[in-house]
Amino acid sequence: MNRTTLINHILEKKSYLCVGLDPDFNQLPFSFAHTPSDLLKFNKYIIDCTKDSCVAFKPNFAFYETMGSAGWEVLQETIDYIPSTHFIIADAKRGDIGNTSGNYAHAVFNHLKADAITVAPYMGSDSVIPFYNYKEKWVVILGLTSNPGSKDFQFLTLETGEKLYQKVIKEAKNWGNESNTMFVVGATHPNELVEIRQIIPNHFLLIPGVGAQGGNLEEISKYGLIKEVGLLVNAGRSIIFASKGNDFEKAAALEANKMHLEMKEYLEKYDIA
Amino acid sequence: MNRTTLINHILEKKSYLCVGLDPDFNQLPFSFAHTPSDLLKFNKYIIDCTKDSCVAFKPNFAFYETMGSAGWEVLQETIDYIPSTHFIIADAKRGDIGNTSGNYAHAVFNHLKADAITVAPYMGSDSVIPFYNYKEKWVVILGLTSNPGSKDFQFLTLETGEKLYQKVIKEAKNWGNESNTMFVVGATHPNELVEIRQIIPNHFLLIPGVGAQGGNLEEISKYGLIKEVGLLVNAGRSIIFASKGNDFEKAAALEANKMHLEMKEYLEKYDIA
Repeated sequence: MNRTTLINHILEKKSYLCVGLDPDFNQLPFSFAHTPSDLLKFNKYIIDCTKDSCVAFKPNFAFYETMGSAGWEVLQETIDYIPSTHFIIADAKRGDIGNTSGNYAHAVFNHLKADAITVAPYMGSDSVIPFYNYKEKWVVILGLTSNPGSKDFQFLTLETGEKLYQKVIKEAKNWGNESNTMFVVGATHPNELVEIRQIIPNHFLLIPGVGAQGGNLEEISKYGLIKEVGLLVNAGRSIIFASKGNDFEKAAALEANKMHLEMKEYLEKYDIA
Repeated sequence: MNRTTLINHILEKKSYLCVGLDPDFNQLPFSFAHTPSDLLKFNKYIIDCTKDSCVAFKPNFAFYETMGSAGWEVLQETIDYIPSTHFIIADAKRGDIGNTSGNYAHAVFNHLKADAITVAPYMGSDSVIPFYNYKEKWVVILGLTSNPGSKDFQFLTLETGEKLYQKVIKEAKNWGNESNTMFVVGATHPNELVEIRQIIPNHFLLIPGVGAQGGNLEEISKYGLIKEVGLLVNAGRSIIFASKGNDFEKAAALEANKMHLEMKEYLEKYDIA
């Protein structure tokens, strides 16, 4: 999906919500068994009941790989089930030497047919550039992550005075462009979002950490939104596991709709249309 | 596999060779079709013809995932085929927020039954620690990688004067211990290996980059070997794709044996027995 189409979908729906399809076995509603087929069934329910509120879905590979090849089938069938109007982010956090990253890119873009993949930057440019060989596909580079461990290395100060995450974003923005590159910035770091917007004023940011991890949608929208939107905010657990009971679809739809309504408000408030 | 058993296998065989099972479709011998079943057949031939020279095998997940769920089946069957005397490194370079990394750990240790997994450190401690919840399993943390892109971030100088890769190794060595943690150090950085040995004098190092990437086994052995061996040197393409002809098994066995003989020599030279 190209940038114009993505922006149009967001503006038509007035939502920049991404739903994280992370079907952790331990948190599934009571009526689902711990089997691949029930996992797929659960994902389909969640897609159906949230698709009107969101513009993107983000399956995290860990929750599928935990079942081995059967999990990869669920992943494939889940992606196949997502409507073509929705942007699909393969949350795989891959990265390897050039030759090898090329094979990961093939897996995610040609085989699974996702629109985007998350990648880890530690191995540098040649570990990421092979992902750019696909038209209208996106590379989503980890910039500043939402977890507590982000403090271990990402906030280290370099001899130049910059933080490591700033340097990573400054370098990595030159690997691609605004039409094929996004950055992950955790919702748990709203202050840093302001400076990050100075480094990359027009890039899309993928923001995890709203909901279960405590990030605040209002702050994120205030500091992150730009004229061309530039935000996809992900919520996983807070939506898909909103209830363990038989009302799980209704509860998920309600949570997604709540975020949707809030996003509508911010898009209007900041005059983005 | 625990540390004592690994060391014993190395000393008995007089080899610290790890064979990279990276069956890139574009480099397979002519007699193999580009199908999952032929990939598995190729891997089995390679395991059979190199197992007497090596103590470990390292399948890189990218070359399997490129075929989706069928690739994961080949990966599972490949791992099942490796003799229990051999250490199995899942070269997956995973890493995600805690909850999610736990699922990757389950995939690799419980489901695939590998002995070790490579992980990327950028997301920090809580992205790696879930991998430590398994007895006699190993976490292999990217320290200084062999690829050109390692220069982009890993060599950055911090305000303390340290390089980023040094800081990563110093921090990460406290997440586990010498019996469950290894570090990746590329064979293309022999000078840095000397200082790395000062930071982690007793840890095992997994050294990629010998062979196709130009690293030198003699140098690596000189600077990397310790009393308890502490090295696994990986060679992939230079062994498994030594010939594209019908003699591919003979050629692979010969290349592996050449490295084995060289390793025997270094173990004797440095009096490691």
